[in-house]
Amino acid sequence: MQITILGGGGFLGRKLAQRLAQEGTLGGQPVTGLTLFDLQAPASLPAPFPVRCLGGNIADPEAVKAAIPAGTDVVVHLAAVVSAQAEADFDLGLTVNLHGTLAVLQACRALPAPPRVVFTSSVASFSGGQDARLEDDARQLPGNSYGAEKAIGELLLQDASRKGFLDAVNIRLPTVIIRPGRPNKAASSFVSAILREPLLGLETELPVPEDFAVWICSPRRAVEWFLHAMTMDTGPLGLDRGINPPGRSATVGKMLSALAEVAGPAARARVRHAPDPAIEAIVGTWPASFTAERARRLFGFSEQESLEEIVQAFIEDDLAATRAERGL
Amino acid sequence: MQITILGGGGFLGRKLAQRLAQEGTLGGQPVTGLTLFDLQAPASLPAPFPVRCLGGNIADPEAVKAAIPAGTDVVVHLAAVVSAQAEADFDLGLTVNLHGTLAVLQACRALPAPPRVVFTSSVASFSGGQDARLEDDARQLPGNSYGAEKAIGELLLQDASRKGFLDAVNIRLPTVIIRPGRPNKAASSFVSAILREPLLGLETELPVPEDFAVWICSPRRAVEWFLHAMTMDTGPLGLDRGINPPGRSATVGKMLSALAEVAGPAARARVRHAPDPAIEAIVGTWPASFTAERARRLFGFSEQESLEEIVQAFIEDDLAATRAERGL
Ligand SMILES: NC(=O)c1ccc[n+]([C@@H]2O[C@H](COP(=O)([O-])OP(=O)(O)OC[C@H]3O[C@@H](n4cnc5c(N)ncnc54)[C@H](O)[C@@H]3O)[C@@H](O)[C@H]2O)c1
Ligand SMILES: NC(=O)c1ccc[n+]([C@@H]2O[C@H](COP(=O)([O-])OP(=O)(O)OC[C@H]3O[C@@H](n4cnc5c(N)ncnc54)[C@H](O)[C@@H]3O)[C@@H](O)[C@H]2O)c1
Repeated sequence: MQITILGGGGFLGRKLAQRLAQEGTLGGQPVTGLTLFDLQAPASLPAPFPVRCLGGNIADPEAVKAAIPAGTDVVVHLAAVVSAQAEADFDLGLTVNLHGTLAVLQACRALPAPPRVVFTSSVASFSGGQDARLEDDARQLPGNSYGAEKAIGELLLQDASRKGFLDAVNIRLPTVIIRPGRPNKAASSFVSAILREPLLGLETELPVPEDFAVWICSPRRAVEWFLHAMTMDTGPLGLDRGINPPGRSATVGKMLSALAEVAGPAARARVRHAPDPAIEAIVGTWPASFTAERARRLFGFSEQESLEEIVQAFIEDDLAATRAERGL
Repeated sequence: MQITILGGGGFLGRKLAQRLAQEGTLGGQPVTGLTLFDLQAPASLPAPFPVRCLGGNIADPEAVKAAIPAGTDVVVHLAAVVSAQAEADFDLGLTVNLHGTLAVLQACRALPAPPRVVFTSSVASFSGGQDARLEDDARQLPGNSYGAEKAIGELLLQDASRKGFLDAVNIRLPTVIIRPGRPNKAASSFVSAILREPLLGLETELPVPEDFAVWICSPRRAVEWFLHAMTMDTGPLGLDRGINPPGRSATVGKMLSALAEVAGPAARARVRHAPDPAIEAIVGTWPASFTAERARRLFGFSEQESLEEIVQAFIEDDLAATRAERGL
């Protein structure tokens, strides 16, 4: 199996690469090569197969072709500018999230055999809000440019699949927690921060009420879903290449209880209430829940683990590196 | 009112231009200028305002900017390659239907004030089939590249409206009958042909059973809807810029009865049954009906006239010109 991860230097790309390196196989077949592509060539990693690390722009068709050579079986397309940045810089969002995905489509189409493409769309491509529990055929009515570009990317890869140019699975990822590193400017940054910062011994602010619900998944679960989507039988998907995976709808209060459960009441006490109507207005339009029937019953995407396990997994996987990165 | 019609040399663009020239006003305001833009500069027409006729490619940002000068109040974006062509030539479809719409977006965004943009999406952007009666929030799951590109165009213009770059109404047009001129290679070509050809005294073939239903509207109704969309209050649309207008769901049998009613049984007898499973497979995936509640109740889009009136209108508006064009 020849695999390319576009955006392979990011949060989830890195974790997927590490997992592939550990396993050495994908779907029972040996991995024969891995290409990691990102704006800056990602650092390599020890693996039982050759790892190629390339720097380049996803919106540059030639650079993307070089990252997806003949013989590529699977492309995982994670390269994107995220919500806050796409909202602040409309042209950058179009360039990376739309023209980038077009470049991926054309590079795959140029291959002798159509590769599997796993594309990460987002809960931010839907509207709905706190009371929503979206069915699998729910319409995508994005309230932000990032979400619109993700919905467009899905349409492009879905149509390219119908044409036989490639074979796409478009996973609409929930908000992935706990993101390591530093708080960022994403409106949803607080969802990770209220767990990560206290685990680092730092104070942090909660901009929404404790009964505010978010559709979440863990990075471990996201990687499991990627591995599944990279090899699953796509025949039964038919025209519809979109997957709402079985994340979890959790209130902020429940997340903080899990934090207290795993790390003690002192950790939880580091979260201060600081209502921020601007942030609530943005994240309040995202649907808080999905039925995810199709992903579960028809396609065997695995269930999200508990909130306590998510907190524990961050401690095991990312706490030390985050401390080091932030000089704590 | 400064107006630009992109694709102004086509079937509906031409009819809209003629109507504007007749009225001289739009929404009670005088039209002060009209630009017609198409691949070949469209022929001018007599009008009580200046008419500019430009040739150029909709995918060329500079050409599109020239067609949408400062002071433009309304842009009607009809330029497109249609279903059969976009399916046969994937790159041409992307170039015209996707990059073209991006060029329209950027040209509008560059204006000092955001113009109204009326974009024609299509019933072909939906799936559903003969038993479908789609609600206004139905998901667009296109089964053809043209439909995918229309759904993408909607997402782009919807997001640009949210950003305040322009002010879009995306009308998902039914199959417009009776199209003048010659039969074309569109899978839906027969829906016009079974009425037009007999009215010209010619034989024609019906590839589907008589109980096959199609979601249709007349060119007169399409032009009424355009005029309405060009001036309506878009505030109540909110995020959702898509309009399923109140077309009519009609079986082929009912259309043929209307033909017999208006033009006599001899006209109807010119239609021969010639089942074509390939054509039925394509048009059979398009939804045969929509509720169109939002367009009717909230936004005052007018009702489709009867099938007999549609046949009569073709005789009045287009029969002589079609005869002349085809040397009959
Ligand atoms: N993390 C989440 O909560 C979440 C939720 C929903 C969807 N997603 C999507 O999943 C994917 C991966 O998420 P992540 O959290 O790892 O994101 P990330 O930002 O950590 O990684 C994305 C990578 O893309 C790269 N990139 C950006 N612009 C590029 C360009 N022009 N050329 C090449 N590379 C470029 C970045 O450098 C980055 O390394 C993204 O597409 C994201 O939109 C993530
Ligand atoms: N007629 C229908 O049944 C129907 C149904 C649904 C949607 N629509 C949509 O409504 C719009 C108008 O329909 P129509 O029947 O008048 O179509 P048409 O084909 O008669 O007109 C479209 C015009 O666009 C022009 N065009 C094509 N490529 C171009 C390019 N690269 N640059 C500039 N101009 C270009 C063509 O020359 C043509 O004059 C189209 O966007 C069509 O997709 C039509």
